[in-house]
Amino acid sequence: MFFASDNWAGAHPKIAERLMKESGGFAAAYGTSDLDLKVEARFSEIFEREVSVFFVATGTAANSLALASVQRPGGITFCHSEAHVIEDECGAPEFFSDSARLAPVDGAGGKIDPKALAAKVARFPEDAVHHGRATAVTITQATEIGTVYSLSEIDAIAAICKQGSLPLHMDGARFANALVALDATPAEMTWKRGVDILSFGGTKNGCWCAEAIVFFDPEKAKEMHFMRKRAAQLFSKSRFIAAQFDGYFENDLWLDLARHSNHMADRLRAGIESAPTAKLAWPTASNEVFAVVGKPAIEKARDNGAKFYDWPIPESNQSLVGENEGLIRLVTSFATTAADVEEFLGCLA
Amino acid sequence: MFFASDNWAGAHPKIAERLMKESGGFAAAYGTSDLDLKVEARFSEIFEREVSVFFVATGTAANSLALASVQRPGGITFCHSEAHVIEDECGAPEFFSDSARLAPVDGAGGKIDPKALAAKVARFPEDAVHHGRATAVTITQATEIGTVYSLSEIDAIAAICKQGSLPLHMDGARFANALVALDATPAEMTWKRGVDILSFGGTKNGCWCAEAIVFFDPEKAKEMHFMRKRAAQLFSKSRFIAAQFDGYFENDLWLDLARHSNHMADRLRAGIESAPTAKLAWPTASNEVFAVVGKPAIEKARDNGAKFYDWPIPESNQSLVGENEGLIRLVTSFATTAADVEEFLGCLA
Amino acid sequence: MFFASDNWAGAHPKIAERLMKESGGFAAAYGTSDLDLKVEARFSEIFEREVSVFFVATGTAANSLALASVQRPGGITFCHSEAHVIEDECGAPEFFSDSARLAPVDGAGGKIDPKALAAKVARFPEDAVHHGRATAVTITQATEIGTVYSLSEIDAIAAICKQGSLPLHMDGARFANALVALDATPAEMTWKRGVDILSFGGTKNGCWCAEAIVFFDPEKAKEMHFMRKRAAQLFSKSRFIAAQFDGYFENDLWLDLARHSNHMADRLRAGIESAPTAKLAWPTASNEVFAVVGKPAIEKARDNGAKFYDWPIPESNQSLVGENEGLIRLVTSFATTAADVEEFLGCLA
Amino acid sequence: MFFASDNWAGAHPKIAERLMKESGGFAAAYGTSDLDLKVEARFSEIFEREVSVFFVATGTAANSLALASVQRPGGITFCHSEAHVIEDECGAPEFFSDSARLAPVDGAGGKIDPKALAAKVARFPEDAVHHGRATAVTITQATEIGTVYSLSEIDAIAAICKQGSLPLHMDGARFANALVALDATPAEMTWKRGVDILSFGGTKNGCWCAEAIVFFDPEKAKEMHFMRKRAAQLFSKSRFIAAQFDGYFENDLWLDLARHSNHMADRLRAGIESAPTAKLAWPTASNEVFAVVGKPAIEKARDNGAKFYDWPIPESNQSLVGENEGLIRLVTSFATTAADVEEFLGCLA
Repeated sequence: MFFASDNWAGAHPKIAERLMKESGGFAAAYGTSDLDLKVEARFSEIFEREVSVFFVATGTAANSLALASVQRPGGITFCHSEAHVIEDECGAPEFFSDSARLAPVDGAGGKIDPKALAAKVARFPEDAVHHGRATAVTITQATEIGTVYSLSEIDAIAAICKQGSLPLHMDGARFANALVALDATPAEMTWKRGVDILSFGGTKNGCWCAEAIVFFDPEKAKEMHFMRKRAAQLFSKSRFIAAQFDGYFENDLWLDLARHSNHMADRLRAGIESAPTAKLAWPTASNEVFAVVGKPAIEKARDNGAKFYDWPIPESNQSLVGENEGLIRLVTSFATTAADVEEFLGCLA
Repeated sequence: MFFASDNWAGAHPKIAERLMKESGGFAAAYGTSDLDLKVEARFSEIFEREVSVFFVATGTAANSLALASVQRPGGITFCHSEAHVIEDECGAPEFFSDSARLAPVDGAGGKIDPKALAAKVARFPEDAVHHGRATAVTITQATEIGTVYSLSEIDAIAAICKQGSLPLHMDGARFANALVALDATPAEMTWKRGVDILSFGGTKNGCWCAEAIVFFDPEKAKEMHFMRKRAAQLFSKSRFIAAQFDGYFENDLWLDLARHSNHMADRLRAGIESAPTAKLAWPTASNEVFAVVGKPAIEKARDNGAKFYDWPIPESNQSLVGENEGLIRLVTSFATTAADVEEFLGCLA
Repeated sequence: MFFASDNWAGAHPKIAERLMKESGGFAAAYGTSDLDLKVEARFSEIFEREVSVFFVATGTAANSLALASVQRPGGITFCHSEAHVIEDECGAPEFFSDSARLAPVDGAGGKIDPKALAAKVARFPEDAVHHGRATAVTITQATEIGTVYSLSEIDAIAAICKQGSLPLHMDGARFANALVALDATPAEMTWKRGVDILSFGGTKNGCWCAEAIVFFDPEKAKEMHFMRKRAAQLFSKSRFIAAQFDGYFENDLWLDLARHSNHMADRLRAGIESAPTAKLAWPTASNEVFAVVGKPAIEKARDNGAKFYDWPIPESNQSLVGENEGLIRLVTSFATTAADVEEFLGCLA
Repeated sequence: MFFASDNWAGAHPKIAERLMKESGGFAAAYGTSDLDLKVEARFSEIFEREVSVFFVATGTAANSLALASVQRPGGITFCHSEAHVIEDECGAPEFFSDSARLAPVDGAGGKIDPKALAAKVARFPEDAVHHGRATAVTITQATEIGTVYSLSEIDAIAAICKQGSLPLHMDGARFANALVALDATPAEMTWKRGVDILSFGGTKNGCWCAEAIVFFDPEKAKEMHFMRKRAAQLFSKSRFIAAQFDGYFENDLWLDLARHSNHMADRLRAGIESAPTAKLAWPTASNEVFAVVGKPAIEKARDNGAKFYDWPIPESNQSLVGENEGLIRLVTSFATTAADVEEFLGCLA
């Protein structure tokens, strides 16, 4: 019963086998091998336009370098106040962007509120040298708390970005989960909405280590070659990432894995809603489920070997969790089984 | 006939299999799994003392973070003028150390000359705020040009470091190749000589992606937890690196692979010495061979499919290479075969 | 009628004369002249203990370098959400500290609420590498909105810092104004309360350009010599700052000037309270006055040549300002005259 | 007998008086006052084209920000191996440019050798991500060792820059001294030669603290507004710098002061050439003189109160200085008197 995080799983067998198969032979290093180029071309197919792709080691690297690529001195990037970039990356986005600031914007359900964003942006007129200046916006899809921006919600954010000439970045650590939740195409959920740069995550969805920065305008990607190398993120045996992505994309494996994860989360959601000792903390649509659970049931689950994390009670909604209750996060992955889900739900009975 | 670089090879079968085996199951993320801890303990055994180990994505990351960990404002790190850190890392060491400078020191055979080092260090007295100040020394073992510091040569560098209270770092991208070349133990080649921090490389010697920073004094490693995370170098599924190292160390596989590489290089060296169209550019002791070869022979080798790089003629020895000759670098690896070597040497006949 | 800012004034005649007198002769450069040393010693007398003093060019430099001196990777400095460091320094504190983050803490009257601070600090346990870690606290005295921390209010902040081993920095751009408002000694308002580092401002109170970083523990100041030089803040003709401070401190001129500024602000406060078209936006105790004024009166004042800035309406108190009103800031200085004050108040009649 | 440095002098009386006169009254802060604008316009007149001007606190700030403004990730700036930026600024140029590297280029007489520069630049092809890339060139005029680039020598450097699309920066800490030595106009010595950005120094030539970054193409200066503020180099009472420049330029005072300095150096040069105990170390053309002097004469001069620094013997010319001799640097300034010069020369007799 492993619900701690989707990164507690290993690699999906098909991806592991694809990597195994790649281990022999020789190939050019530093991202120039035939396989690297093939996979880059595959990204362009998937996104229905020519994109520039940069493999990196971690999601934090993808986010940080993506945001660094659009920074300017005194720059401020707006993100949701609970976003991974501001909460869980130890200052990496600032570090890689020569100290550009992240400014939190509130919004219900883990999503930036467009009105709040517009108000924040307006506080930074271009000629006000003291305050710094608005330079970018980043959204997370799916969000840190399991929700998913609808296409029109992305449109609303993108409209503000367009008006302010602010590049829009999407943190897609759980990109596939959001995609299948919306039943949208990769193009529809990104550049067709106005997204300029994407952190495309494969690690949480069945790869060992496969993250990529995707630029929808290759013209704007030119500096990234040097930025990535200087950031110590250019792998010599880059094809070990390419091979993972190759397996990941083959026969739409990636979408199948995400559908499985989301489906397991659906079952958790349904079970929690009907459990006597638990309720959903808020609705979610991806592979993360947040539940308010009675403390005895939490204890029982842990005694039975379930792994999951407590989650901090939101400052804005302290009454969500009663005295003898706890707020927990449950994350499913390609490796979650129906049996695990049932066993866990059994602990709530 | 792949002699372009040891990073053109894939992963050794035993390491690939070990990784394959690890792909199932669940484990704690971010370096806290049992396997991570087991492998860290293995490092302590190998080095015969308690060490602190940090897995990172690339050799550049290992070098840059290791050097950053000992930097101070205005700091200057001394390296050989042909060192990888100053020639081939796109400014990453400076980037991660908040702009500390690398200062080149000359020396024959790719090794820092102790006298030249002492003279350079003396130019930066601690109280001279304008010039900056000496803060560290880094050596490469094996060096960028295939040579290997003897133990007493390391002693000579370490003595200067000790006198100036300068931490000594070793870039061990080809650590195993140097180790077997000297027939020394890991401890003898590092902390017993005065090395404080080591970049321990596995990638060039049969892993996919396995690099580690090793601190011989764990007290001095405390900040690295935050430095690594901020540098976007903390892998979520960290056990994919741990598994590679686990396979790498099992039954001393790593030493066998390095011996094989060096042995293939020995055969190249012997063949070149007796070839009518070629000569060794300088003596080497690890898995890199540098040769001055007649242009027709170079062409012939390339026509027959051999892959290798031209190497820039040293500024200090322009007469090394004649008019109808070229200077080439040949690198062997665990995957180099005797047949490849013979085929290549055949082109020089 | 110049109430735009205290930095619109020039230099007080006595300070200008002291500088004029210094212009002749020769003296050692880079802060080593006899006058530099004399003024440094004067700081120690004023603060009743041995302090380390570093002259810098701007208040932003003083704040940024002071905070940088206590930073660590992943570090977070807590400041009030309206503090100058986070609102008006264009990201300089982050820039100089290699990207350490500023985290805003709320609190009434422009002052950090100790409970809110304690809650924020508690969110960053030392071993949680993802979130970053608490590394410092900075308070502004007098605050950005004209209020002044009482000595016991500083005690409350300092107690939290002490518990968390967090250095406490004070931004004293208007240090003298706060000091005379509290009728405290420099020692009482700083290190006797637990302040570790002070940005000591002279510019807003009658100097041309005289700012200093003061360390109350000289042991912790050692790196600053290199940090300041690397930050391009070490003046060659440093005595031009020393001379200003020499004049500033002579016969307690600095306290007289601050008393004058505050007194002019007192008269503004009294006049506004009794004016039919205006009211104080909130109580202040230093040389800044914030008023809600009817728009016709604002217009009248500007037509009569008064210079002052509109101030953004606080998000937390939108009802403060009526439809036909504006929120303005009035700042007095050593150069403000009673006649100016009366003329301005006349516009509110 | 003060020959230690031109920054041991104070401020010229006319500049001090101009500053004194400015001390009264009120004016807009942060570089927006009428006087700031007037002086900026004066720069455009002096340089015979529209320029963008940014006042900063120190020459190190001017150099560092100028170079930072043209940096790109992995960037390398070429400078002479004895240049102030690489020898005496404690890493500030790297710090402000997010770690871009300075690469030393040799050349006789303290001047970059064009052939050596071209060779170095050629080593960094634009697509070689590992090595970093050439991004700028900086020359010092007058140089650190007292020589002056002729106009055609600047042309030769500029031609290489143009070919490689590398911005050319001039460190003009002693700009005026070079200008009068060449009898050229400011335009002739800068943009007419291909210089893109200039560090214009006033401090060493009679100001207290007056340094400016001058962009010859205002289009390329736009980011500097934010860069300067973020660097804590935007003075609130900016007019205290403007006033110094106003006095500096009035009636060509600046050129007169530089002529005086150079003339005093001429007398030193002539006297040393004819002295029995001394000789010129190398020819110089500005206000710096380097001499090889017998140790007894050095001692005598110091006993008589002369202030000057020993200078390190050049690595490339160790035989320059005999066993009982020393190498010293003598710097003249606007405040140097003929009597001082004669007294010093008397010590060499």
